[in-house]
Parts: sequence; structure tokens; C-alpha cells
Amino acid sequence: MRQNKISFSSDYTKGAHPAILKRLAETNYDQYDGYGTDEICNSAKEKIKRICGCDKADVFFLVGGTQTNQTIIDMLLEPYEGVLAADTGHVAAHEAGAIEFSGHKVLTVPCMREKMQNGAAMYSDTIGKIKADDVRTWIENFYADANHEHMVFPGAVYISHPTEYGTLYTKEELTALSKVCREYDIPLFLDGARLGYGLMSNRTDVTIKDIAELTDVFYIGGTKVGALFGEAVVFTKGFPGKHPVPVIKQHGALLAKGWLLGLQFDTLFTDDLYFNLGRNATEKAEILRKKLTERGYEIFIDSPTNQQFIIMENSKLEKLAEHVRFGFWEKLDENRTVIRLATDWATTDEDLEELFSYL
Amino acid sequence: MRQNKISFSSDYTKGAHPAILKRLAETNYDQYDGYGTDEICNSAKEKIKRICGCDKADVFFLVGGTQTNQTIIDMLLEPYEGVLAADTGHVAAHEAGAIEFSGHKVLTVPCMREKMQNGAAMYSDTIGKIKADDVRTWIENFYADANHEHMVFPGAVYISHPTEYGTLYTKEELTALSKVCREYDIPLFLDGARLGYGLMSNRTDVTIKDIAELTDVFYIGGTKVGALFGEAVVFTKGFPGKHPVPVIKQHGALLAKGWLLGLQFDTLFTDDLYFNLGRNATEKAEILRKKLTERGYEIFIDSPTNQQFIIMENSKLEKLAEHVRFGFWEKLDENRTVIRLATDWATTDEDLEELFSYL
Amino acid sequence: MRQNKISFSSDYTKGAHPAILKRLAETNYDQYDGYGTDEICNSAKEKIKRICGCDKADVFFLVGGTQTNQTIIDMLLEPYEGVLAADTGHVAAHEAGAIEFSGHKVLTVPCMREKMQNGAAMYSDTIGKIKADDVRTWIENFYADANHEHMVFPGAVYISHPTEYGTLYTKEELTALSKVCREYDIPLFLDGARLGYGLMSNRTDVTIKDIAELTDVFYIGGTKVGALFGEAVVFTKGFPGKHPVPVIKQHGALLAKGWLLGLQFDTLFTDDLYFNLGRNATEKAEILRKKLTERGYEIFIDSPTNQQFIIMENSKLEKLAEHVRFGFWEKLDENRTVIRLATDWATTDEDLEELFSYL
Amino acid sequence: MRQNKISFSSDYTKGAHPAILKRLAETNYDQYDGYGTDEICNSAKEKIKRICGCDKADVFFLVGGTQTNQTIIDMLLEPYEGVLAADTGHVAAHEAGAIEFSGHKVLTVPCMREKMQNGAAMYSDTIGKIKADDVRTWIENFYADANHEHMVFPGAVYISHPTEYGTLYTKEELTALSKVCREYDIPLFLDGARLGYGLMSNRTDVTIKDIAELTDVFYIGGTKVGALFGEAVVFTKGFPGKHPVPVIKQHGALLAKGWLLGLQFDTLFTDDLYFNLGRNATEKAEILRKKLTERGYEIFIDSPTNQQFIIMENSKLEKLAEHVRFGFWEKLDENRTVIRLATDWATTDEDLEELFSYL
Repeated sequence: MRQNKISFSSDYTKGAHPAILKRLAETNYDQYDGYGTDEICNSAKEKIKRICGCDKADVFFLVGGTQTNQTIIDMLLEPYEGVLAADTGHVAAHEAGAIEFSGHKVLTVPCMREKMQNGAAMYSDTIGKIKADDVRTWIENFYADANHEHMVFPGAVYISHPTEYGTLYTKEELTALSKVCREYDIPLFLDGARLGYGLMSNRTDVTIKDIAELTDVFYIGGTKVGALFGEAVVFTKGFPGKHPVPVIKQHGALLAKGWLLGLQFDTLFTDDLYFNLGRNATEKAEILRKKLTERGYEIFIDSPTNQQFIIMENSKLEKLAEHVRFGFWEKLDENRTVIRLATDWATTDEDLEELFSYL
Repeated sequence: MRQNKISFSSDYTKGAHPAILKRLAETNYDQYDGYGTDEICNSAKEKIKRICGCDKADVFFLVGGTQTNQTIIDMLLEPYEGVLAADTGHVAAHEAGAIEFSGHKVLTVPCMREKMQNGAAMYSDTIGKIKADDVRTWIENFYADANHEHMVFPGAVYISHPTEYGTLYTKEELTALSKVCREYDIPLFLDGARLGYGLMSNRTDVTIKDIAELTDVFYIGGTKVGALFGEAVVFTKGFPGKHPVPVIKQHGALLAKGWLLGLQFDTLFTDDLYFNLGRNATEKAEILRKKLTERGYEIFIDSPTNQQFIIMENSKLEKLAEHVRFGFWEKLDENRTVIRLATDWATTDEDLEELFSYL
Repeated sequence: MRQNKISFSSDYTKGAHPAILKRLAETNYDQYDGYGTDEICNSAKEKIKRICGCDKADVFFLVGGTQTNQTIIDMLLEPYEGVLAADTGHVAAHEAGAIEFSGHKVLTVPCMREKMQNGAAMYSDTIGKIKADDVRTWIENFYADANHEHMVFPGAVYISHPTEYGTLYTKEELTALSKVCREYDIPLFLDGARLGYGLMSNRTDVTIKDIAELTDVFYIGGTKVGALFGEAVVFTKGFPGKHPVPVIKQHGALLAKGWLLGLQFDTLFTDDLYFNLGRNATEKAEILRKKLTERGYEIFIDSPTNQQFIIMENSKLEKLAEHVRFGFWEKLDENRTVIRLATDWATTDEDLEELFSYL
Repeated sequence: MRQNKISFSSDYTKGAHPAILKRLAETNYDQYDGYGTDEICNSAKEKIKRICGCDKADVFFLVGGTQTNQTIIDMLLEPYEGVLAADTGHVAAHEAGAIEFSGHKVLTVPCMREKMQNGAAMYSDTIGKIKADDVRTWIENFYADANHEHMVFPGAVYISHPTEYGTLYTKEELTALSKVCREYDIPLFLDGARLGYGLMSNRTDVTIKDIAELTDVFYIGGTKVGALFGEAVVFTKGFPGKHPVPVIKQHGALLAKGWLLGLQFDTLFTDDLYFNLGRNATEKAEILRKKLTERGYEIFIDSPTNQQFIIMENSKLEKLAEHVRFGFWEKLDENRTVIRLATDWATTDEDLEELFSYL
């Protein structure tokens, strides 16, 4: 049963690429060892290590994004340390306190830089991104403070790529961040819940190998990029502790039938499927933005990825809502609203045509 | 690719009932709202409430067992309270400290009562079960202790049904436990990770309606009984707090594509599928036990459910291991070992035949 | 042995009022029950309840400020709730993550409003204070956000009085805050680590009875106001839970010889000693500020309490540092630094004379 | 005001040795730096290191026992590790879940070995003590379990000396425990809340130097042995992490006026005061036991330290309770009760005389 309206509200409204469903069916009665110790997981791990160009990496698979952020951050930090993040970062704003639940403070850096455009406040293109200099200043101020032993130590830096606003770090920015982190011996963690859509943007110079080289840990989002669920965590220089399994388990994050995760990533990393799915979404987003601009709609954030933020007259919005589901983002002024339209790995030309017919 | 050996090592080695895979494929491009707010979840919840006979229940779906135990227990307890459990209970022994991770002590009641049989120590049939009297005594001793405000308060009682040893509570035992808990205003929580195999034992008088009536919260295990993953939590008298969602989220337990859980339970609770799958495993286990007894094998624990515990000569064990995967349970003496053979929702007569051919 | 320099660096550099030491000596071999169940604690509690004008209050005694903030906030919040505080608040900035350690997020409201004065950025007089409107806006925005169940719920409001910058809430401001909190059924918690210095300011209209009426819980700081250590917690409408003792204990905050706390507060609340000690510090601070202004020093924050923030030329600062210990606060510009000079319950005219001799 | 009855109920019913009160008075208006960074703390630390014979030790001072246990154990453990302790240990039984509050499981070893004596069940002399073999067996079983990554890892061993039952480890036992711990690279932590009474028993061969050599961390109890409050933590081989201060602070355990702790320990470790106070209690306990035995009272546990456990006829008990406060321990049978009588650093011959007059 198809819902009565087409939805561009988010990139997690559909199931999985058919190749995954097919393989689930094919292997349904094969019997696998539990908890990710099976051979499909091993195969997927090897593929990911090869694609990342890091033989020494430790890879494991978790179920969802908040769970992954919470587990990784807890793995990285000493109890007295917090994680430095953009104040717009998912861990800071939209995870119901999952980081604090495991005892750590999220130390925030303001990332909502505004600029004026056509008489309205607009976010700059760097929205959602932490700058290397911000991190350096934060850390230097911290250690310069005579009372810093009474404060929360910076123990890791969290960035999302793409960010929650669809923006991307450049290779130069990422390199600078990595440099600061290494200078202070603080691990850099990249949340790649939408990584496929970042890697396949036509406006990025960052590859997955760059990310593997420049970060200490990142994850490859499956939930939003073609899998039913699942995030592949890559500790690029090897896991920094001794025992990841009990940590994952005590976070309630160890899937019994772990091969279901391995199978999905093994499929996604066969014949470049993950990248092709990523490209579909960003290409469709480019078309979407181009068409909307042609039709006179104003773009709120110039996003190079699958999330597009559009300024809509409220009068038009109500009409659109009769046919299309979209993400309400924020009220811009009395008459205008910012909405989010997200394409995904399965968005078709027909979907776009249907959308445009209502715009 | 089928693994080279047939496995009776556990009940989570296979995928899901084909009806689930079929429905996943059918709905793959339908677009659903996230986080369990979709209509399939609603349908599944209604079916579960009907089957349980409790209109006032609150139902939600989580991904795995440890996650579910941790989240529910944290929902039930005040920070200064612990959960009373059998020392053999999953939460006490095999969850890597997930309960303590969320700040709560597991208060244990010894449940490894031994008896001698044929010159060897054998567990009694009550292994893994808490008695109502044990709970009463524990609580009375607690409050009788002048220092009890310096101790961990009992805030909930956890039982598993079937237990980790395959045993089952009788309706009388469950009623007695429920009575004690209500007397002291302490919620009774039943871990039903293998509930289907308990309900469909031919040696039980406990129905799902009994459980819904006698407990405050329980869950219906999907992972081990026909689903890819998923546990359906039933707060039988309604959720005792205000906001389950942020609690679930901060435990990293809120699945983005929540309808995947709803879809599985909606399928399992259509046309009695869940019960039929449960029956398959227990019937196969009965055959297994009967045949083994006939062939002179000694049964270690007289389990009425899908897990069978067999005493094996070590010499025979090695030979069996060449063809069959099984669960190593414990060393009984120099020459003998206890193994676990688990049937499941998909075990066939052919599987049993193959197994018997090696015994 | 007196240290070689006089110190105005903080208000916790000396022991306790002699009346406390005297009573410690007198009762040294009396034998008291432990953990605050003794008669001196009871006497102190009654005195505090009387002075606060709240018969229904529950009073207990803890050892130090961070411990008290952590314990009270944990008592007030559900696990999925955070505490709203000024970003300058002690719980947000200077407690090493003690609030997050017990699982809760500190939700911050910006309170470093700047103004320009004589060409330099100066803090406004409202520095360190939360406005009722800020709280209202925060809460309304939270509930207006469609995703608020994925965010940290506001579960309590924390204010400090005096604030970390020596400023004070007016009765009007406190009343407005209280009103908003009650409107949303969120408890208001006042950190009174320096309460005596706030109550006895000559520029306040807030009494301890006002505080007892307008807040849900506050504490009367002893450590900084005449006691060796100790904070008296007052739940003005009664303790909201069932068992404060195990919560205090599990926070490591239950003093074995609890009567030592009771004895100090019983002494402080005999013959208005606490208020007299408070007045000494604020009177001395007034003299200090007046003299410094006369001598041409610039006041950085116009504090009506015992902490005075002064702008010093760096050249003069070095000379002063040879004779006096003071608190380094922040670098204002290349040539000037802000320092903190704190008077206390025991500051004498001679102390001030000595200080002035170096200025 | 002296309470109307003499009390032998515990060893924390009185203030402090007069030398401490005297020094508090003498230094009252000296001004010290906060948080334990002062010169008295430094002096005390040096004295303790000298007495322990360990130059490399890191010493710091906390306020109370539960706080100290919680903080040290949290310092020793990885998040997925628990602490191995006697099931009678303070951390296991009487700290309101303070260890679990900081996320760690207490892994218990049964220590209530019973023996029959005169027709009644009696505890053996090893009550409250962990044996090296028990630890070895526990750890070997853990690692032998194929599922141990799903269980709580043993990360530290906790012992108390004297134990909660007044018993003492021999040097041989302590050496054996230390050997096992080092073999498995697990730190050994000794809770010395009553250390002075253990060291000065006339039935011990364990010195403070032995403890410093054989453990990784221990603490010297002040609260129960002559101080108003305070526990001196000794990391015998140096602090194993980087930053103890923020960890202490986030446990709410950093005393603002830290010198109050340093002053007490500096006094206790001047002219052997700590040891003399310890000896007083154990000598008085010896007299107590001898007299009671002479008068036909039965000793329940043969304790070589300041806590004596006596079997009393209930009829006599009531009469005794009219004049003396004592610790109710447990009901032995219908007619008899076990009580605890504790001597302390200040118990006098007159106190004993008064007690004997009622027996």
C-alpha cells in the first residue's frame, strides 16, 4: 500500500536496494554465527578496508545513527572528557541526550553564522561546519584557563559530513581539522550517516580514502543510503582499546543476527553500488534545485548534497502540502517558511516530475 | 551459501519467515514516517493488544534483547533502585553490564538448585526460575534491615520465560510472583525473548493473556522466533511514565525505519503465524528429546521448550562436532559434557534426520 | 603559619567562625548517631525551616557545592530531562561535567550580554542571570519543535544567587522566573553557595523567605560563608521523591558524621550569625569598591556582593601580586586585566588597609 | 550535651583527636589555596609516602568512604569492567548502588563460609575475606567461557582490611592475592576505612609498608580513626591515568577547603598519632573480649580488631539496651541475637567499666 502522498520529507522513508532484499531471501536458511562473527561480515569488512585504503582499520557494524554516535564517542573518551561538536551537530541537538546518558558533555562550537541576503537573514555556506581555527582556539583557551582541571576536557572532535544542513567540508578544511586534532592528540570522528550523498556530490573534492586518512574513526551510513538499516564503523588506525564487543553490548548495540548488517554492507560495496546510490540522490537534488531556481524559488542554504532547503511563500506551502510530504524546517518571516526536500538513493525522474507538477 | 555443517547451536542462526521477506519486498518503495509512527506499527500494536486482551496496553518495538532489557529496566526503576533477578538471568550474567551501564544494580536470587542423579550433580527442574517466596523473603529481609536506606532498593522483578535453561513458569508460580510484586508495589517484568517457544510448549498452562494479566511489562521476542530482528514491548497497564520516546532514543534504541519492526510483528500476528512458528520448534524439540532418550542419551535438564540440554560422552562429542554445530554448555565431569541443541521456527524433519544420522 | 601574602583570591581561604570551632571542641566526645539522624541536625533543620518560613520544607546537609548541585539536579530530573542554566552557571562551566556524569545535559541560555563602555567591551549588569522571558522562549521553542521528543526535555531551571559574577536577582526577576517555572511545572533550583552575601547586600530586595517561597529547592552555602564546609539543602515544598538517603549515598555525598554539618548550621543560624557574617563581607566589599573608585580604578562588573571585579593596568598588577593574592579573571586588552577581589565573613578593616597600602 | 547512653554502636560516633581540633583553631585565619593544592596537604602527602615507603606514590584526600570507593573504582575500571569483591564487601552490600551509579558491576565472591559450633551455625574466621584461589578461579572461569565478551570483565579486585566483620588478611594471604592480580594485570584495591585498627591488631603480621607494596591503591581511613572526616588515597605505584582532579570533581568529591583534609592527616601522621589511636581501640577490644569470655558470653566471630561480635540472650539484650547503644547484627535463633560492640580511638577504661557494669 503506497501512502497517498509522495514524500520528500527525509531520506529514510523507503526500504532497501533490491539487491539487498534478494540476498536476504537467498541466504534466509543458511545458518550463521551470531554477533557479527560470521563470514559475510568478514567479507564486508575486507571490502570496506580495501575501498578506504586502510589495512589496519578495524570495522564493525551497528544498527542506527544515534546508537553509533553514542557508542563511538563513549569508546573515544575518558570519563572526564567531552566531545567538541558544532552546536548544530546531531549529537548536540537531536539525540535526546544520548551522549550525556553515557556520561559525557557535548562541548559546542557555534555554527549558525548568519549573513544578510535580499533583506533576510541567511545562513552562510559554512553552516553546520566546525573550522579548524575554532577547534584550536577552543582547546587553547581551555588549557590557558587556570581552572581547566575543573572543566570538561576536550577528548574528541565530532563532525558530520554531510552536515545536518547538507553542507560539506572541503579537503582543505578536513586536512586542517585533522592537523589540529593530531597536534593535540585528540581523535577526529566523522559522522557519515549520509556519507554516500557527500562522497557523490558534484561539488566535493573529498574521497572516502581522504576521510580514512584524515579521521581516526568515521562511519558509513547505510540506513539513509540504500540499506534497511546499519552503519559501518571504521576505526581507521585500528580500535584504540582492547575489547569493542562488551562496550557495544553494554550500549545495547550488538545485533544478534549480525550477518544481516554484514550482508547489507557487503552488497553495497559490491560493484560500487553504494556510490551509485549516492550519485542518484545528488544528481536528482541538482535537478531539483536547478528547476526550482528556474521557477523562481529561493534557495535557503546552497547545499551540494541530497538535502535541499527552499524558501516557500506560506500560501504556496499549503497547496503543496496537499500532494507532497516535506520537512518543515523553520519559519523565516511572517509570510515565508523554509522547507527541506530530500532526495534519496531511489528517487526517480518520475518522482521529480510529480513534485514539479505541484510547484 | 550454506555453511558446511548443520547447526543446532542456537535459535538465531537463520533469517526470517518468508512471509516477512515477501512483505518487505512488497512495501519496499512505499514511504513511511520514521521512528515507529507509521500505520503498520499501529496495526501491529492493535493486533498485539487484541491477542493479549489488554486494551490499555502501550506497545512499542525495539531491535534486540539486551537493548530491550536495558531500556525497560531503566524505565521501571528509580535511580536508587535495582532489579531483582535470578542469578542465571540474562540481565545478571550475559549482557556485559548493560544494566549497570544505565546505573542500576542487578540484585540476584540464587537459582542453580542442584540435585544428585545417577551419581552426578544435576540441576533441578526449577533451574533459572525465581520463586515467589524467594522474592518475598528478599524484600522482607531488605525492609527488616535497619540499614536498608544504605542498600539498593528492590524496584522491579525480572524473570525470563522460557528461562535461559529452557524451563517454564507454571501459571500458579506466575500468579504467586505477581501477587507478591503487587503486594509490594513492585512491577513484574517478563523477558520473552523466546516467548513463542514457551507459549507453544506442550507442557505449559500459561497463555499470552495470562502473562499480560499477571505482569506489568513483558516482551514478545521476534529475533529468535521468526523475525529478522525485533522485540515487541507490552506495558500491560499502560506506560508508567510520560515520554517513552526520548528514553528509547537516549538508549540508542529508536530505529529510524521503525516500520520494519511493525511490519515483522504485524506479519507474525496475522493468522497465528507467531504461534505456529513457536509450535514447530517445540514439537521438533520433543521429537529430538524422545529420540535421544530412546538411543540412551541422558537428558541434563528436562526442558519443555526448544532448548534441549544433553549429556554426551566426550568421545562421541568430537565425532558429532565434525558434522553438527551445537552449543557447548558445561563440562560435567572428566568424560562427559553438557551440550545444548536448539530447534527453531524453521527446523525441519530433514534437519532432525540429518542430526540423528550422526548420533 | 600565615602564608606570606594576604589573599583576596576567593571566599574559601579561611577556616570557620570561632563559634563553630568552639562547639566542635565542646561536643567532641559526645556520641551521635551517624548520617544526619542526630539531634543537632534536627535542631538545625528546625531553625532553617523557621527562618525560611516554610514548615513543610525538607532540609538536609551536604558537604560541598558541586556535590550538592549534582545531587539535587539528579533528584529533580527524569533521565530524559536536562537542566536549564545560564551558560556562565557553575553547573554549566566549572564542575568538570558532574551533571553529565549523572546522565543529564545542561541546557544553556547565553548570559554574557556585552555593552561598550569607554571603548572597551563590558558586561552588562545582568551578566550571569537568566531572564524569565529567556526561559519562556526556550520552553516554547522546545515544545513548538515537531522533533522535540528527539531532544532533551527541560526538567528544571538552575540559577545562582549571587551569580558567579556577583550579581543578584531582584525580587521582581525572581518572581517572574518562578511564575514561568510553575506555569510549565518545572522546578526552580537556586544555588546559594554564596547566599549569605546575596541576602546581606545593601542592594537587594530579596529575603530568604522570598527565596523559600519562590523556588522549589535552594541551598544555603556554608563553605563560603563561615563554615568549614557544608551546604544546607532546602526542598521548600517538601522532598519530591520517596527516599533521599539512598540517592545522596549513591552520589557519595552522605557524610558518616552527619552531625558535623548539623552543628555548623545550627551555630550559623543561632543569633543571626549567618546573616552577620554575610553582612561583614558585603560591607567590606562596599568599602573596597568605594576606595578603588576614589583612587581611579575602573570597576568591571558592578557587583552588589562580596566579589568585586576590577580593571587593572598590567604594570600595576605585577606589583600588586608581590603582596596580595587575587583572582585572575580575564585579559581585557593588551594592557589591562580584570581581577577578582573577594571579601569574606572574616575580612577585617586591617585586611582592607593592608590591601589599600599596595594599591 | 552527652547523649543519655554510652555508645559502642560504631567507631564514628565521636569528633576528632584534640590535636586536630587544636590545629584547626591555630590555622583558622591562615589563608590557603583551595582544592588540596596547599602546603599542608603537601606535607601530609610526603609523610604518608615516607611511612608507606613508596616515593612514587600519588596521594590525595577525599571526604568519606563510599565516595572514596566509588571514585577509586571508577578510576581503575574501563567502562566494560567490573570490580571483584566479597559479597559481604561494603561496595557490594552497603553503598546504595554507588558503584553501579558510576556504571560498574560489582562481581561478587561468596565469603560467608559457615561452620557449626555448639549446635549453631557460625561464620568461619575467614568471613569477609577473598582468597587468592577464589580470584584465580573466577578469572580463569571467566576467560574459559566462550561467551566472556558478553559478560562483565574483571577489572579490579576490592578487599577491605579489616573487613566488615573485623577480620584481617595475613601477609601470606595478601601476598597471594597480590600475585594473582599481577599475573592477570588487574589492580588490587584495599579499602582501609578502618586501617588503623587493622595495623595495630596484636594478631596481624601486615604492616602499612606491606600494603603499599602489595596493593596498587589503598586508603587510610580517617573518619573512623581519629579524624573528623577524611580518607587518604594512596596510589602506590603512581596514579594510573592523567588527570585525577576532574574525575574527583565530577564525583562531587573535591573539597573546596582541601587543606582541612591535609591538616588532619598531617596531624595523624605526626609522632605516630594514627598508630597510637589504632592501638587504643584494639587494646580496648581485647580487654572487652577477654572480659566477656570470662563472664561466659559467646563470641560470634573471632575478630582481632576493634569490632567485636557477641552472642547475647535476648532477655539480657533488652536490659543492656536500657544503658548502652550497640549495633544489632543479626538474629541467631529464637532466643539469641548477635550484636556488634565497637571500640574506637577514644575509648577509655572508664567506658569499658561502665559497659561491664551492665553486662
